[in-house]
Amino acid sequence: MLFSECSSYQKLAQQAKHPLDLTEDKNLTPERIRDFCTEGCGFKLLFGTERISQEVLELLFDLAEERKAVAQMEKMQKGFVLNKIEGYPSEHRSVLHTAMRDFFEDQQDAELAKVAREKALLQIESLKAFLPQMEPFAHLVVIGIGGSALGPEALYLALENLQKKGKSVHFISNVDPDHAARVMQKIDPKKTLVLVISKSGATLETFANEELVRGYFKKNGCEPKEYFVAVTGEGSPMDSTERYLKSFHMWDYVGGRFSASSLCGGILLSFAFGFPVYWELLRGAHAMDKNALKKNPRENLPLLASLFAIWNRNFLKLPTEAIIPYSQALSRWAAHIQQVAMESNGKQIDREGRTLAFETCPVIYGEPGTNAQHSFFQMIHQGTTPVPLEFIAFKESQYQFDAEVKGTTSQEKLLANLFAQSLALAQGKKSENPNKAFPGNRPSHILLGEKLTPYALGALLSFYEHKVAFQGFIWDINSFDQEGVQLGKVVADKILKQFVGRRAKNPKDTEGFVLGWEMLKHL
Amino acid sequence: MLFSECSSYQKLAQQAKHPLDLTEDKNLTPERIRDFCTEGCGFKLLFGTERISQEVLELLFDLAEERKAVAQMEKMQKGFVLNKIEGYPSEHRSVLHTAMRDFFEDQQDAELAKVAREKALLQIESLKAFLPQMEPFAHLVVIGIGGSALGPEALYLALENLQKKGKSVHFISNVDPDHAARVMQKIDPKKTLVLVISKSGATLETFANEELVRGYFKKNGCEPKEYFVAVTGEGSPMDSTERYLKSFHMWDYVGGRFSASSLCGGILLSFAFGFPVYWELLRGAHAMDKNALKKNPRENLPLLASLFAIWNRNFLKLPTEAIIPYSQALSRWAAHIQQVAMESNGKQIDREGRTLAFETCPVIYGEPGTNAQHSFFQMIHQGTTPVPLEFIAFKESQYQFDAEVKGTTSQEKLLANLFAQSLALAQGKKSENPNKAFPGNRPSHILLGEKLTPYALGALLSFYEHKVAFQGFIWDINSFDQEGVQLGKVVADKILKQFVGRRAKNPKDTEGFVLGWEMLKHL
Repeated sequence: MLFSECSSYQKLAQQAKHPLDLTEDKNLTPERIRDFCTEGCGFKLLFGTERISQEVLELLFDLAEERKAVAQMEKMQKGFVLNKIEGYPSEHRSVLHTAMRDFFEDQQDAELAKVAREKALLQIESLKAFLPQMEPFAHLVVIGIGGSALGPEALYLALENLQKKGKSVHFISNVDPDHAARVMQKIDPKKTLVLVISKSGATLETFANEELVRGYFKKNGCEPKEYFVAVTGEGSPMDSTERYLKSFHMWDYVGGRFSASSLCGGILLSFAFGFPVYWELLRGAHAMDKNALKKNPRENLPLLASLFAIWNRNFLKLPTEAIIPYSQALSRWAAHIQQVAMESNGKQIDREGRTLAFETCPVIYGEPGTNAQHSFFQMIHQGTTPVPLEFIAFKESQYQFDAEVKGTTSQEKLLANLFAQSLALAQGKKSENPNKAFPGNRPSHILLGEKLTPYALGALLSFYEHKVAFQGFIWDINSFDQEGVQLGKVVADKILKQFVGRRAKNPKDTEGFVLGWEMLKHL
Repeated sequence: MLFSECSSYQKLAQQAKHPLDLTEDKNLTPERIRDFCTEGCGFKLLFGTERISQEVLELLFDLAEERKAVAQMEKMQKGFVLNKIEGYPSEHRSVLHTAMRDFFEDQQDAELAKVAREKALLQIESLKAFLPQMEPFAHLVVIGIGGSALGPEALYLALENLQKKGKSVHFISNVDPDHAARVMQKIDPKKTLVLVISKSGATLETFANEELVRGYFKKNGCEPKEYFVAVTGEGSPMDSTERYLKSFHMWDYVGGRFSASSLCGGILLSFAFGFPVYWELLRGAHAMDKNALKKNPRENLPLLASLFAIWNRNFLKLPTEAIIPYSQALSRWAAHIQQVAMESNGKQIDREGRTLAFETCPVIYGEPGTNAQHSFFQMIHQGTTPVPLEFIAFKESQYQFDAEVKGTTSQEKLLANLFAQSLALAQGKKSENPNKAFPGNRPSHILLGEKLTPYALGALLSFYEHKVAFQGFIWDINSFDQEGVQLGKVVADKILKQFVGRRAKNPKDTEGFVLGWEMLKHL
């Protein structure tokens, strides 16, 4: 059945004609702020400022039930083949990023999940054995793009304060040669380990950057084989002890954007912060994996968040969603989640290949608060289209570097601003001066943790992975492939051949692609 | 007259029912790729891949004429009071960021513009006189938020490769105390100059961070007065030779988000790269200011871009716009433009205070290409709602650190990908397999420069400032105030008082704001 044909969908659409009016005191009450709250894995999810009445909440739970959201999550974590399109050739794979951290209590016993866990554990043992070899290096340069870069970098920045003295990590992702050039200026090859991440072992950008960096190392008298390690699929062109000091493995059932908790993130976290930090992150992620299996949607944090997102997208018809962490350490969090969400659910067909008549993934973006308040929040308050917000915050700062200024600490100022935004956006304000009037009814919720520890970070990572997966289950789309990136690659290949021809100064062959050829003439 | 009542609006709405179909070969031709191109200030604007027919283009020009877009730009640059709402109390100010760089050929002779230029020049002379005092410092810490942070940081990162040996610049913006803490770990106070930027001299975040950093300096035996300089409004609490080594001035006719080319950006650019780099940037910005005055819209780059944006937003009804620089140096460019655009045009009333019945600013976001291709481009190609794209690229890299890999350089790979995306998004691709089908007709244009020099960067900065201003002129909104950020501040103040009460452990007074009080109980 199509999402839009569900009986709960019809009822929700009816409710959406007159959604809860948060500008009325009788609706947005202290009791609501108190009760619209769910706790799990050290986080509270506060959702009193969503435009969701008790009735809508229950209909959303019906929707989750009708779409068998939790049952599908169970299947995913057990290793069922969910990455497929019925009736058409497709990747046809399990989706087992949860197996990358299924090392704690209450492990999966389904066969595929078990095998994946055991393979992952072997790789973690390899990493532990490799730690003494990493120790002498001062710098780590990570070469990778997409999922091999965004998640790992977001995690690294989130924990930067735990950095071991004298260690630094740098990322090269863009094929723009200025990216590698800039990083090379910051490191001394003799003290630098290079980590190259590519599941296929053939990613254009990663390959080109690796060659650039290898050249630089050679020029500086460093034999790359002694400095380069790889994370790649078993048997890929990069799985080579001839070219690398060490090759670690990943698997096709862990999608790039879901790979941050695998060794893609694990090696650099261990390098910068020590292995126990990585292990704690896995423990937090695993705890949230278990939370995502809770059958009662009222207790299932990622499911709840996915239902709010679906309400805002498909019923209130809001085309975007902002992720605003009130935590500078999460400065690149929204960029990572932007990929996780938009690459997973930016689809227009369902799992039977039918073109959808409803909207799927919204545009996801965000910057840390309070900074965002001084940037685009003008529009969030007074723009023509509301933007639902997902706030993230922590009660305590990571460092305890703080001071009272004008009677409050900076951490208190941070939290006061967070709560103020959430309430001001919901309540709005009337004014005779139209420029000082605020319409209100701009929905948000807050994910509130104790402190941004490795454990909390792991839980947060898993929260988003599962929020996105739940949305896909409810929409009935395949959240685990990315066919949409293929066409650009094919066309780029044609234009690359034209570049070669152009360089040969005998450029007769347009490779049958005159539009690309015409573009090149503009250079 | 309302925007939506213009005769060109009506005709455009008619055209939008059957917009140009770019998937048809007869429409997207090599001739179109060649001819839909405008040059100025060292940039080409290639717009053959917009869904704009010759007829629509001419109607958009009529719209610009009907809305007197260029005449309003002239008024702005001359110092007319454009920051106002008729009939209501408002800021009632000139808008003269262009005077911050009106030092080159063909200067404005209108009185207000002239006075503003002369004041700006005096400040630049002050900066030049101060250069020898900056010279001994190795680090610069910039404390500021919003316009005092995003633009300056984006400019700094764009030119990072020109950095003088042994100099580094760090930014503290967020009131999150972890932000300051992290930066303090990276610098040695004895070698560090601190630049505090706040026009009002009373920005909450900036004040709190300045106090934190002053405390750290004192603890390390450094008397802040010898290390701290300010950029602030004349007569503000920060305009003090008792507290600062030096106070530089800014003015209320330069909005924060338009202040990057003033000393807000100038001091740090001069510190990191030398004064001549800053001067070149001003020269480039000034050149684009002049381009924005061109009466023929076909020759006016920012006006053209604003018309494409309006076509996509108000006629094709697309709610977002992505800015994708194929240049890693522009990694924070979209974050800066996000503020410039969304804070300026995220408004729901016109300049007479009337509530608008049409959409204004779209959500603006973006990441550098090729990275974005491996992140959210899945959705750009196959999502349910098209996202118009603004690509930025340069023919040459900044460094010449490059190598041929598989027959092409990285710079060629970068450009091949850019052209490929633009064409693939427009053309799409049919397939029997619905997962391999691409709908096409996803609009974009390319701003193509020679090389990301200080001059080009200045031109690019001005291009966006004026693109946004033109959109505001055409919609008839006041792009220069930000009343929408006020309510959050008022509510935050109430909650801050509750924090003080809570700390006193005798918390009886909820400050009449029970919702905030209830939020605090969640801590």
